[in-house]
Formats: sequence, C-alpha cells, structure tokens
Amino acid sequence: GHSRIDVDRRARTGDPEVVFGAGKSPQQVVEILTTLHAAHPDTAVLATRLSPESLDAVEQHLPGAVADRLARTAVLGPLPPARGLVQVVAAGTSDGPVAAEATVTAQVHGARVERIDDVGVAGIHRLLAVRDRFTEADCLVVVAGMEGALPSVVAGLVGVPLVGVPTSVGYGTGAGGLAALLSMLNSCAPGVVVVNVDNGYGAGVHAARVARA
Amino acid sequence: GHSRIDVDRRARTGDPEVVFGAGKSPQQVVEILTTLHAAHPDTAVLATRLSPESLDAVEQHLPGAVADRLARTAVLGPLPPARGLVQVVAAGTSDGPVAAEATVTAQVHGARVERIDDVGVAGIHRLLAVRDRFTEADCLVVVAGMEGALPSVVAGLVGVPLVGVPTSVGYGTGAGGLAALLSMLNSCAPGVVVVNVDNGYGAGVHAARVARA
Amino acid sequence: GHSRIDVDRRARTGDPEVVFGAGKSPQQVVEILTTLHAAHPDTAVLATRLSPESLDAVEQHLPGAVADRLARTAVLGPLPPARGLVQVVAAGTSDGPVAAEATVTAQVHGARVERIDDVGVAGIHRLLAVRDRFTEADCLVVVAGMEGALPSVVAGLVGVPLVGVPTSVGYGTGAGGLAALLSMLNSCAPGVVVVNVDNGYGAGVHAARVARA
Amino acid sequence: GHSRIDVDRRARTGDPEVVFGAGKSPQQVVEILTTLHAAHPDTAVLATRLSPESLDAVEQHLPGAVADRLARTAVLGPLPPARGLVQVVAAGTSDGPVAAEATVTAQVHGARVERIDDVGVAGIHRLLAVRDRFTEADCLVVVAGMEGALPSVVAGLVGVPLVGVPTSVGYGTGAGGLAALLSMLNSCAPGVVVVNVDNGYGAGVHAARVARA
Amino acid sequence: GHSRIDVDRRARTGDPEVVFGAGKSPQQVVEILTTLHAAHPDTAVLATRLSPESLDAVEQHLPGAVADRLARTAVLGPLPPARGLVQVVAAGTSDGPVAAEATVTAQVHGARVERIDDVGVAGIHRLLAVRDRFTEADCLVVVAGMEGALPSVVAGLVGVPLVGVPTSVGYGTGAGGLAALLSMLNSCAPGVVVVNVDNGYGAGVHAARVARA
Amino acid sequence: GHSRIDVDRRARTGDPEVVFGAGKSPQQVVEILTTLHAAHPDTAVLATRLSPESLDAVEQHLPGAVADRLARTAVLGPLPPARGLVQVVAAGTSDGPVAAEATVTAQVHGARVERIDDVGVAGIHRLLAVRDRFTEADCLVVVAGMEGALPSVVAGLVGVPLVGVPTSVGYGTGAGGLAALLSMLNSCAPGVVVVNVDNGYGAGVHAARVARA
Amino acid sequence: GHSRIDVDRRARTGDPEVVFGAGKSPQQVVEILTTLHAAHPDTAVLATRLSPESLDAVEQHLPGAVADRLARTAVLGPLPPARGLVQVVAAGTSDGPVAAEATVTAQVHGARVERIDDVGVAGIHRLLAVRDRFTEADCLVVVAGMEGALPSVVAGLVGVPLVGVPTSVGYGTGAGGLAALLSMLNSCAPGVVVVNVDNGYGAGVHAARVARA
Amino acid sequence: GHSRIDVDRRARTGDPEVVFGAGKSPQQVVEILTTLHAAHPDTAVLATRLSPESLDAVEQHLPGAVADRLARTAVLGPLPPARGLVQVVAAGTSDGPVAAEATVTAQVHGARVERIDDVGVAGIHRLLAVRDRFTEADCLVVVAGMEGALPSVVAGLVGVPLVGVPTSVGYGTGAGGLAALLSMLNSCAPGVVVVNVDNGYGAGVHAARVARA
Ligand SMILES: Nc1ncnc2c1ncn2[C@@H]1O[C@H](COP(=O)(O)O)[C@@H](O)[C@H]1O
Ligand SMILES: Nc1ncnc2c1ncn2[C@@H]1O[C@H](COP(=O)(O)O)[C@@H](O)[C@H]1O
Ligand SMILES: Nc1ncnc2c1ncn2[C@@H]1O[C@H](COP(=O)(O)O)[C@@H](O)[C@H]1O
Ligand SMILES: Nc1ncnc2c1ncn2[C@@H]1O[C@H](COP(=O)(O)O)[C@@H](O)[C@H]1O
Ligand SMILES: [Mg+2]
Ligand SMILES: [Mg+2]
Ligand SMILES: [Mg+2]
Ligand SMILES: [Mg+2]
Ligand SMILES: [Mg+2]
Ligand SMILES: [Mg+2]
Ligand SMILES: [Mg+2]
Ligand SMILES: [Mg+2]
Repeated sequence: GHSRIDVDRRARTGDPEVVFGAGKSPQQVVEILTTLHAAHPDTAVLATRLSPESLDAVEQHLPGAVADRLARTAVLGPLPPARGLVQVVAAGTSDGPVAAEATVTAQVHGARVERIDDVGVAGIHRLLAVRDRFTEADCLVVVAGMEGALPSVVAGLVGVPLVGVPTSVGYGTGAGGLAALLSMLNSCAPGVVVVNVDNGYGAGVHAARVARA
Repeated sequence: GHSRIDVDRRARTGDPEVVFGAGKSPQQVVEILTTLHAAHPDTAVLATRLSPESLDAVEQHLPGAVADRLARTAVLGPLPPARGLVQVVAAGTSDGPVAAEATVTAQVHGARVERIDDVGVAGIHRLLAVRDRFTEADCLVVVAGMEGALPSVVAGLVGVPLVGVPTSVGYGTGAGGLAALLSMLNSCAPGVVVVNVDNGYGAGVHAARVARA
Repeated sequence: GHSRIDVDRRARTGDPEVVFGAGKSPQQVVEILTTLHAAHPDTAVLATRLSPESLDAVEQHLPGAVADRLARTAVLGPLPPARGLVQVVAAGTSDGPVAAEATVTAQVHGARVERIDDVGVAGIHRLLAVRDRFTEADCLVVVAGMEGALPSVVAGLVGVPLVGVPTSVGYGTGAGGLAALLSMLNSCAPGVVVVNVDNGYGAGVHAARVARA
Repeated sequence: GHSRIDVDRRARTGDPEVVFGAGKSPQQVVEILTTLHAAHPDTAVLATRLSPESLDAVEQHLPGAVADRLARTAVLGPLPPARGLVQVVAAGTSDGPVAAEATVTAQVHGARVERIDDVGVAGIHRLLAVRDRFTEADCLVVVAGMEGALPSVVAGLVGVPLVGVPTSVGYGTGAGGLAALLSMLNSCAPGVVVVNVDNGYGAGVHAARVARA
Repeated sequence: GHSRIDVDRRARTGDPEVVFGAGKSPQQVVEILTTLHAAHPDTAVLATRLSPESLDAVEQHLPGAVADRLARTAVLGPLPPARGLVQVVAAGTSDGPVAAEATVTAQVHGARVERIDDVGVAGIHRLLAVRDRFTEADCLVVVAGMEGALPSVVAGLVGVPLVGVPTSVGYGTGAGGLAALLSMLNSCAPGVVVVNVDNGYGAGVHAARVARA
Repeated sequence: GHSRIDVDRRARTGDPEVVFGAGKSPQQVVEILTTLHAAHPDTAVLATRLSPESLDAVEQHLPGAVADRLARTAVLGPLPPARGLVQVVAAGTSDGPVAAEATVTAQVHGARVERIDDVGVAGIHRLLAVRDRFTEADCLVVVAGMEGALPSVVAGLVGVPLVGVPTSVGYGTGAGGLAALLSMLNSCAPGVVVVNVDNGYGAGVHAARVARA
Repeated sequence: GHSRIDVDRRARTGDPEVVFGAGKSPQQVVEILTTLHAAHPDTAVLATRLSPESLDAVEQHLPGAVADRLARTAVLGPLPPARGLVQVVAAGTSDGPVAAEATVTAQVHGARVERIDDVGVAGIHRLLAVRDRFTEADCLVVVAGMEGALPSVVAGLVGVPLVGVPTSVGYGTGAGGLAALLSMLNSCAPGVVVVNVDNGYGAGVHAARVARA
Repeated sequence: GHSRIDVDRRARTGDPEVVFGAGKSPQQVVEILTTLHAAHPDTAVLATRLSPESLDAVEQHLPGAVADRLARTAVLGPLPPARGLVQVVAAGTSDGPVAAEATVTAQVHGARVERIDDVGVAGIHRLLAVRDRFTEADCLVVVAGMEGALPSVVAGLVGVPLVGVPTSVGYGTGAGGLAALLSMLNSCAPGVVVVNVDNGYGAGVHAARVARA
C-alpha cells in the first residue's frame, strides 16, 4: 500500500525533498508533506503542481505551510539561508504562474530571487531599460510563451548563465508551447539552455544550484 | 507533350510571368523563359529555384538574361519602373540566398529594394542602430533562421507592414526551418505575416504588391 | 503586483493599444481597458479573445465600449478615420468568428472594411460571381478552414495584397487548423502570406497597415 | 531463396499481377516479370517504381515489354480490353510522373484513360475551360502537389467519383507532400477520397475498378 | 446576417443538399433543413454531425425528418430510388457511429446499403466466413479503428472498389485515429482509397456515386 | 583514446557481447570483435549494422568470422547450443534484411530459428496455409513494412508470444516506417509487443531469451 | 442489433476472453461479461478500461465479479492455475494504474505476479537494492512515465525477457506519453520490447504467455 | 558585400568570438577567423561545425590555429586562463564528436575540462564506479543518444548543475535525436536543463559560464 518515499535526497544531492502534486489526492499530498517534514524538520520541503483542492487541504491541515495560489506550490518548514542571486525574468502577465513556480523553487533550493516582469520583445525598450540589472545575477531564468524570443535577446546582452522556460501560453500552432520550446532550443544567442514547457520547477532547481555554488 | 503555360497572368493580376525552376530541366527552363519573353517582350519574366545547371544554360543560351547565383534566379527582359520601397532585412549571412530571392522578386514585381543585413537578435545593438531606416519602407521583408526571432523584434519597433520569412538554416530540431516558422506564426508582436520556409519569392511578391499600390 | 502596461505603442508604430484577453480575468480586462483609454481618450483601444464573462463585465462596467459577441472583442473610444479598403472574405459560416475578429481589428487600426461571405471553393460559381469586387480592395483577408483552398484560388484571380487566415474548423486530421495552415503556406498562387490559425487579429493589423498607407 | 510470388491475384480479384519495383534489383525485376508473364501470357503484367537501371534491364532483356521513363513503369503482355473512361487530371508539370503512373496503371487494369494537364487552381480559367469534359468520365483521378487544392475545386463541379493523389512536389512545410495530403483529406467538397503521397498506382487501380464495373 | 446557402448542388453534381451540423446551433440546423427541403421537396436533404440538442430540435420541429442518434444524422424528404449496392463493413462495435453515418449518407445519395459488422482482423475466421458476400457489392466501405488493418485484408480478397474509413477509436499513439489512417494510406493491398478520420459521410458519398453509376 | 568496452555482459545477463557497427570504421569493428573474441573464445560475438566496407574488412581480417551481407552482420566464435524455437515471419521480400538480422541475432543468443516468408496480408490464403506451424514456436518475430498489419492477424491466430518488427519499407506517409510502427502499437490483437523500426536485433534478443528459458 | 462476440478465443489461443470497456455502456459491459462467463464458466473472463459507472454496474449486477478501481478492471470466474512468475516493476506512484492493469491481466492469463514499486531512476539506489530479485522472474513488465528510462536500466542488469510500458504521466512535451514511448523504443539496452502508451493489458498478456510456457 | 561581423561580444558578455562554420566556405571561415583574431589577438576565437574542407583550409592558411577533426572545431589564439571545472560525460563512442565540441567550447570559454566516457546506462556499474568524481565538478555536461537516459540517472546521484546534450545517434524513431531530446526534457530527476540535438557548443558555453563564476 504505502509508497517508497525517497527521504535521502538531501544527503545525496544537497537538495530539499519535493512532492510532485499532479495526479495526487489532497490527502496524499498532506500525508507525504507531513512525512517528509518529520524527517527534515530543519529545512523546507516543497510541493508543486497542486490542484486547488490540494492547496485547500494544505492550508487547512498544515497551518505551518505557505501555499502560493499562482505558483500552485506549498512550502513546509524554514527556507534555507539564501546564497547567490537568481533573477526570474518574464515576458508577459500570462507567464506569471510559471515564473512564480521558478521563484518559489529557487528559494527553497537555497537562492535569493528577484523578479523582472513584462519585458517581452514586442516592446524592446522595456527590456533595454533593465539590462544593467542582469549583470548582478548569478543565474537568469527567462520565461516566455508565444514565440519565446525573450531568452535569445537577453542572452545576447549578458554573459550570465541563462535558463529559458517556454510556457504553454499561445493558440493555434503555439498551443502547448511547442513554438516557444523550439525557439529557445534553436536560439542564435550563445549558451541558452532549456527546460520542458511550463517547467518552472526544473529551471528553479538548476538556477539555485548555479547560484549557491 | 507541351505544357499549358499561363501567359495571361499580367492581364489578370498585374504581375509578371514566373517560372518555378525546381524539377525542371535546363532545356525546359530556357524554353519556357524564351516563350514567355516572346509573349511579353516589354517587361521582365522571372525564373526561381534554378539548379546550377539551369543557371549555366540560361547564361549560355539567353545572353540578355541576368542570372543571380546566390538567389538562384534569372530575369529576362527590362525591369518595370520601381514604385515604392521594400526593405529586405536579414538576420545572418546564412539567410543570404533567401533574402536575395526576395530582393530580385520584389524588383521584378515593380518595387525598389534596399537591403539591411547582419542584424540578428543576439546582438540587438546592431538592429537598434538601423531602426530609423525602417520607417522609410512601404513594406519590410524580414528573413531569419534558427529561432526566427527577428520579425518579432522589428514588428515591435515600427508600424510598417512586415512579412517574416523563416529559413531552413539550423540543425537538430531547427533543421528544415520549423522552429523559425512557428516562432514567426506565434509572434507576440502585432501584424507579423509569414510565408513558407525559404519562400523569398512569395514574400517578394506580396511586398511589391504592397509597395507599388 | 501590477503589470507593466505598454502605453506607448501608438507613438512607436501608429497602432492603437490592444489587450489580449485570453487568460485574463474579467476584472483585469476592465481595468486595463480603463487605464489604456484614460491614456488615449481620443482613439479606440481594442480587447480580443474575451471570454463570455469578460464580455459581460465590459458591457456592465464600460458602457461606452462596443462588445462583439461573435468576434469576442470589445472596443473603447472612437474609431480612427477610415483610410483605404480591406475586404474580409470567408469560405463558410463556421469561419465567421475569425472573420469578425479581423473585421473589428482592421477598423480599429484605421481601415474601412467590407465583408464577402460564403464563397468556399466547393461551389466555385459563388466566388466567380464576386471576383470583380476584389479589385477594389487595398488588401484582402481570406479566411478558410477545412482544406483552406480559398486563398489559393482568390490569389490567382487578382493582384491585390492578400493575407490568408486558416481556421480551426475541421475534424480528424483537420482538427486544430493544421491542414488549412499548410495549404495556405504552400499555395501555388503567388504572394499568399499567412497568419497563425484563427489569428484574425494579426491579419486585421497587417491589412489595415497596408490599406491605410 | 526464391520469393513466394502471388500468382493468383487475377482469380481472386480480377486484377493483373503487379511488381513493386522499389528496392528490387534489375535482375529481380526481370525475373519476376518473366515468371508472371509465363503464368499469365494472355494479359499484361505491370511493374512500378522502377529505377533507371531496372528500366534499362527491362528494355534489354524483355523486348516485348513497354517501358515508360516518366511513369517509371514497365508493362509486359497485351493490355486488357478497355472498359469505361478514367480521366487523369494534373495541376502542373511537376505532377507529371505521378499522373503517368496512374495512367499506365488504369490501362493495365482495364480502363480507357484520358489526360487533362496544367489546370492548377492558381489560373482557375484553365480549369473552367475544360469542366464540361469531366462529366464524360466514369472516374476522375486528380493529381496535385503544393497546397493540393485542385481535387476540392473539381469535386465541387461534378458528381463523378473522384480520387485525389497528393504529390511530393513542394518545399519547406510542403516537402514530402504532407500539405497536399492533408488538404485533400480535409476537402470541403463532397466525396473526395485519397491515396498515399505519390501513389498514382493505387489511384489507378481504384479508378479502373470503378470504370470497368 | 443570413448565410449564402448553396441550393444548386443537385443541378451541378446530381447529389442532394447536405448540412454540416458541427458548430451550428439547433435553430440554425432546423432553419437550413427547412429552407433546403422547401427548395427540393421531392428528394431527401441530409444533416450530419448533429449535437444531441440539434437532434432534439429536429425531432421536435421537423416531424417529417428521420433522426439517427448513433449516426448523428437527420434526413428530411423521401430517399431517392436505390441504384447499386454499397456494403458498409465494420471491424468492431466502437466503429458503429461512423459506419452508421456512411450508411445513411450512401442511402441519401442513391444507393442500397448492406451492413457487415464485427469482422475485425484479430479473429480472421469471422471475416473469411463472409467473404463471398463482398463480391456482390458495387463498392465497399470498410470502417476500422485501432491499427486499421481491415481494409488491407478485405482488399486482398476481392476486386470490388473499396474505401477505407479510419476511426478515432484507440488510445495512446492511436488516439485521434492517426495509426488507422496511416495504416490505410500505406496498405500493401491494391487500390485502397481513404477518407479523413471518422469521415463516414465522405465515404458514403463516394461509394454511392460509384454504385449508382 | 580507447573505448571502455563492456566485456562482462555475459556474466550479468547471459547474453553474448554485441558490437553496434553503425558509425564505426572498418578498423574499429575488426578491433572490437577481436578484443571481445579474445575475452570470450568459447562463444560467438556478434556485430550488427555493418557497412559494406566493414563487412569486407571482417572477411579479410577475421577468416573465422561468418558475415551475412543481407543481414549486415558478422559472427565470430561458435554459436551457443540452440534451446527452444524462434520463428521469424516476414510479409514481403523487402522485409528480408530485417528478418535476417533477427534470425542471426536469435541464433547467437541461443535459439534455433525457422523462417517463414512472403505471407503478407494482401494474400491472406498464404498465411492461412502455414498457420499450424506457428503453434510449434516458443516465440514469433513478425516483420512487416507498409501498413504493418501482419502481426495483428498472426496474433489473432495463436497464443504464442509474438514480437512485431516494423520496417522502413514504404513511401510517402509510410517512409521511415512510422505507419507500420503505429499499426503494431495499436494492434487490436492481444499481446503484440513491438521494437523500433528495423530493429531486428532487439526482436531477436527478446525472442531468444523467451525461447531458451 | 447484437454484437458478434468472439467466444472462441480460448480454443484458438489458449487465452481467456477479454472485454475492452472503453466506449461501452455499463449495461453493455455487464451483458457481455455475463454472456462470456456463461460460455466459459470454468475460467475467468476479464474487462479492462472500465468507467467508474461500469465498475459500479459490475459490482451491483455481478456479485461474483472482482472489480479493481485502480486498475479499472473486473474479473468474473475463477483465475486459472498460476504457472511461472511475472514481476511488474513501476517507477513511481503515478504509474500505479497501469501497473495494476498489467498485474490483473497477467493473473487472468495464467501467471503468478509480484509487484516492485517506486524504483524510478532518479534514485538509482532503490533499484540496485532489489536487482537480485529480478533474476527470479520469467518475464519483467517495467512501467514508467516521464522520460521512461527505467526499462533501459533494468534491461542492462538482467537477461530476463522484459516488456516496457510507457505511461502518459507527464506534461508539456511529455504529455500523452510520447517521450516515454520513444525512450523505450530507442533503448540502448538489449532486447527491450514495448507496448502502446498505458497498455498494461498488452504487456500483461505477453508476459503471461512467456511465463506460462 | 562584406558581412557585419559582431566583434564586440567580449565587451558585452565576457565570451570569446565564435564562428558558426556550417554553410560557410573554407575561404569565408579563414577570413572571418583572421579578422576576429586581429581584433582580439590576446584570446582565442573559435570556429565550430567546420567541414573537412574548412578544416583543411584552416590548417593550411592559419598555422597558429588548432584544428580538432573529431570536434570539427578550430581555435585561433591563446586559451583564457581556466577557472572552475567542467566534466563532459558521454554515454557511448558514437557520442564522441558532440562531447568533443562541448569540451573545446568550454575550454575556449574559460573552464578546465575533464572527460568521462563510455558510461551508458545499459551497464550501470560503469557509471557507479565513477560517481564520486562528479561531485568535484562545477558543472556537468552529459551527452547521450538513443534513449538519452544518462542525464536522468546522473542528476539523481549528485546536486551539481547539469546540462544534457541529446545526440542524433540512433535510427528509426530515434533518428535525428528526438527520442533523446524528449527524454531529457522530461527527466524525472531534478534540475536537468537541455540544449538542442548535437549542440555541444551551447552546452559548453553554459557550463563554462557556470564554472568560471
Ligand atoms: N520560388 C517559388 N516558390 C513558390 N512558388 C513559386 C516560386 N517560383 C515560382 N512560383 C510559382 O510557380 C508558378 C510557375 O510554376 P511553373 O508553371 O511550374 O513554372 C509561378 O507562376 C509562381 O506562382
Ligand atoms: N507503386 C506502388 N505503390 C504501392 N503498392 C504497389 C505499387 N506497385 C505495386 N504495389 C503492390 O505491391 C505488390 C507487389 O509487391 P512485390 O511482391 O514486392 O513486388 C502488388 O501486388 C501491389 O499490391
Ligand atoms: N542493431 C542494433 N540495434 C540496436 N542496438 C544494438 C544493435 N546492435 C547492437 N546493439 C547494442 O549496442 C551495444 C554495443 O554498442 P557499442 O558499445 O557502441 O558497440 C550492444 O551491446 C547492444 O546492446
Ligand atoms: N555549433 C554551434 N551551434 C549553434 N550556434 C553556434 C555554433 N557555433 C557558433 N554559434 C553561434 O553562431 C554565432 C556566429 O555566427 P556567424 O556569425 O554566422 O559565424 C556565434 O556567435 C554563436 O552564437
Ligand atoms: Mg516572448
Ligand atoms: Mg534570428
Ligand atoms: Mg475552403
Ligand atoms: Mg494545386
Ligand atoms: Mg482493425
Ligand atoms: Mg503487411
Ligand atoms: Mg522513469
Ligand atoms: Mg544513453
């Protein structure tokens, strides 16, 4: 009956324990968070991709947890000390949930996070206005949907390690995020690395590992 | 045996006659160009997608023709008077052949053409340095491969009608130009219209029609 | 918290401000329209892809706005003076919403618009009956789903600039509009340019830019 | 080593024996044609998709055979009496090889064949000029590449059974014939049936079966 | 506001008028059927792809109409006299709705129809038990989902014209009917022609045209 | 520079060592075979996907090796004793190379192999004539290209474990073997398992493991 | 009316009768199970892919049946004696339903089944801890979603016949299970065979056939 | 005429100048390398994706350059001082060229590089034997083709930032590297980021930026 929870990740990789909430019942989410927190009371455990019902259950049964409705995450236990700076850069309002997931994830994995929003390439002056800030980051997470051009432009401006996150914002041939993903994989700018569509979690883990090193 | 050549396009659409050279033998190309030129001696006829062998045959048998090795085109007969300005903008050197095809096509269809090269988005300062010129054009043709981001950035800068041309420059998931095509179809900038991968011809026709109106 | 609204598009491109309604709450739509209208009281602002709930909210809270249930648009502020003529041509009844979005968009971007409906290629006589009208347009927007053949036939009849809009009308391999999109991208007729599936907005912007020039 | 040749098709289906030449050596082609002809001396056997080398071998070793370089076919033995009329309609010159394969196949399967060429939809007047002839056919085979619109227009003109054959003529997103195939599968005209890309053979078999009934 | 209904199809093609019900409101369906029936009171008009609500509306407002819940069709007016025999062959129970649509369509287009069900290839003895009946048909419509092998086996047994109809029955890589469609397009048996996934209508039109000739 | 050859597979899995020849130079192939044979002189080592040049080199430098030009394999060292029976069943002549690769592989992995050829579904009587033999096998490997229907029909006849191998035999939408692969993955017959396109090797390994158990 | 149920599978293949519940009404499921059980009272019949409503109906109307809510199966009649051992290995909790379907299926087809859960490759020590058990199995069924790497790692550890089952667990480019399927089809480990996404049934049939031999 | 070479990248991003050699003539490659080296004599410039002819030209005309035939790269000018450690890990011999490109690129971008080869997941003991070394790296580049499982396994072992590079090694559904790419994008291990198929260059840039920080 019970699942073989992996409670030793921290020892192996230095990362916190994380629950992938998709397809899990509210009760399962609460139980696993409780178990992991008991094993690691000194540091935050994270749950991602929570349904509204799971978020309700977390808020009701785990008063110590911090739920984020936009990011669809819950965090239980104290954040680790923040080492290094991750900037999460988003093209448009619709990319907000994915940017939020990257933000929470990077914090739980030990980085300080700044947000820079609404700098899509259709109004390039907005991006140029903030370009000097990019050089302060240890790692950039650049989130964009539609044609996903933003990482290409940012990566041409600074030499900071940069992760592109395509989002499923779009319609027609853009539905599902394929256009944005392909755009980032084929960037003409040097050194853009990519995660799966809407995978703010993966980008946040990588960025925090880079920043905290 | 002989093909039913459409020699009345000019009357119907105001456009010159055009031969699609792909899959035609050098002899066929020379013959069709000769026939069309005889029917329309006063204005240029165009052949596109010519093989090196067809270009050789054109130069040998049609001394009055102008062959362009990069564009893979041949033009026979005098260009029409140029009305309106088309700017053909290219991201990188590798996009040159497609930009050249668009250039020749727009000229044969009655527009004046300017070229702006090497303004890919990975070095955005190069693009910003020429942005004021864009407002002089009646129509922009923006050619880019890899992630195809250039039309999105340009279309955010000026309100001039703009046609994006994805090129098949790229490898891996970018091979064949799909990434660039999807990027342009899903542009977050307003009013970007698109043609098939490597279709400089189609973009040139549309741009000339817009410019000469 | 608040989004970095781009209120300077008009100065840059001559185009009105536009809100992409998909994924925005009714309250967000009303707020952004209000803000943009305050910044540009003299000319219309446009919202597209509005949910029924957002359309309700617009009608309730912005009595000066004109909502179009078929087009899923709202317009707030006076239309600009109409320069040039855009014809929006639709193959069948099911293409109506996309044709309507193109119509409203072209008007808000400064063009006069005429509609020509129900001229699908399966009954070619209907199309031939109206062909003389096409020559009056400065730009044609041709909307079709299923096999998307209509732009190819129209573009063979006249030399007017023409934008094809594939719609997601269809099923089986036609679901999502891919068949119509590929058909238009590979048109054997000269100069067909294309926008994303169901993107009446993009076609309307381009057509108005062409017509008003 | 020898292959288990199916020499009883005629008894089962009334159709002649056919050799699929792709991937077979010239020697194999000659041997199988010889075997099949010996078993059925009174009626033609057909080989399709022959390489130039196989066509050479057929002409050298089987003087009674009729090889067609464009269709890439060889026929050995007398044609059956022709019953019924198949019209093979082609959009452009480049569709010639596939139209030729359909023609030879329909003849070998017992139908009389007429050819109607160069009636692509970009010059619709050429098609309208021949529309009255279509009503004389028992079955139409309509061959087109690029956007593959021709079957949709023809099927709207007459109620004759019609098979569309997409060809691999095209480039970019049209390469391989996918655009033409999808276009025909999603035709808005009634009753269009389709075969695989470049499969003139399959269309010819079906059309002859319809015509000879 | 009103749509340009094509009321002349019969004169052009000999086929009845047909309404494509997908995306139309119950009221629209009833109105168009009424209009078409008034123009052609002597022969049936057909509506396909009707929603349950449209079927309800037809039954309530058009008492003379015959609605088929499985086929999702409605027929108004007397069937034409039946000429020729179409057999509709289905692999499994789940293919029933598509087979029913083909059946009704062929009847409305002037053919007599027989049904042969539950003869999927996983139990080949069931198919062999009925093979002699196939030779009585003028045209076969063979409906199958999953791997779509049935048309290949039937087409190897008899020389009757045969249309394959892939259905969207399946899951995983079979979802949407792509596997069945590709299987039929690539049949190793001679002369299989194909329609779009779930397009019983198209197959019925073609088969009736063949049978009634 | 030397590669870390895995010389311990036998101990771990009971299987022989195998060299994947694609992309390796003739010299590399000969060297690796020599090394592996030296480590395991008592039992055969296998090389697959050898280029003609590699096959030449093997024959020249390793006189004890058995090269198979059709299968593109080489075997060095004595075959293991044969336990159990694998039948390799092929639809057509063109599937021969893949069937041969499966045959050699199963023998090297310890099974006896029988071949049954030319039993494609378009002539189902050929298959029914051999069906009784299938029950003698411990495992069936069924190889087919085009529409890939053969495994579905065979798996409905007997309860023997069966592996389908799609081949890349085909053209148009069948090119590359996708149609055959999808057909086998979506078989309506019970228990069909599948390997990658043209992967006779994988099927042979699995079948031998089943047969020898 | 009634469907042609195949009640002779057992005689032909030694396998039990199985009902594919998808798309069938609760009433149909109950009726077919009843009919099959009457024909084969001595051995279990199986129904898969049952909706919650069908599971309810089975529990209400067939008290002798065993329903499994996770596997979405029902079994009516006594299990056959278990011969041989199948191990069903699952990567993560979300793969549970597919693993359960494979488990029930293998039992009904005559094998004993063991389950090994939560051994995904991201924590490889969990897998290594159980590797010795794998050698006891006659056949392994390895179930994994996301990147589907688990079968590749297991197949490198032991020489037991192994079937990979990709699941549709995933999002973005992983939605629908394509990534896992491709991963398993292209395994670098020898002898991995694969079934369709989420096809625990197919894997269970094959594994039981192997195990019981 | 001349291309607008971007000679200021170093100032903007701290990275060296790089020439993308694909599609450039040997003469172009030599000229651009010469120009860039003249502008930056103190630090290496890099050319990638060089044809054999371009490599020949570099060796002949630029004696100071270091050409790497496997990596298809050339380096002109002194390497920067190495800061930080990048480990390039490769699954098999066939992944060598891509691993070599990543190696050279990371060195030119300022990192020290170690190579770990032949640790594919089909022989997991080889990987476990070197796992302790991974913790010494500042960034891991993990190169794999076929099913691309290696990054998932490595990322579960250590918390070091890790970039996966899918290679186009494979055939059938694996041809072109899609299987490996999807596998890495959908890794069940935390924090795997990815570059385009065969893009050792992009991975090397990112890894060096991480390592040298
Ligand atoms: N490069 C091109 N790409 C697409 N279509 C073209 C191209 N060049 C010519 N065409 C079209 O092909 C037609 C001529 O085709 P053809 O009669 O085969 O030479 C022209 O009228 C154009 O519409
Ligand atoms: N051009 C073609 N396209 C598809 N199938 C074909 C073609 N030519 C022949 N065939 C089929 O291939 C069978 C012969 O295959 P084979 O025994 O390999 O020569 C014929 O009976 C036809 O059913
Ligand atoms: N034809 C084949 N298809 C797929 N995998 C193969 C094939 N032949 C050999 N292999 C695998 O490739 C491994 C050897 O690869 P390598 O170390 O590159 O020589 C073998 O142990 C097999 O697991
Ligand atoms: N192997 C490669 N793959 C992808 N992009 C590359 C590669 N090599 C160089 N580049 C990019 O191409 C740019 C140079 O392009 P070009 O000016 O055409 O030589 C470099 O600045 C890099 O950003
Ligand atoms: Mg963007
Ligand atoms: Mg670009
Ligand atoms: Mg249409
Ligand atoms: Mg056409
Ligand atoms: Mg079937
Ligand atoms: Mg077959
Ligand atoms: Mg896994
Ligand atoms: Mg690997």
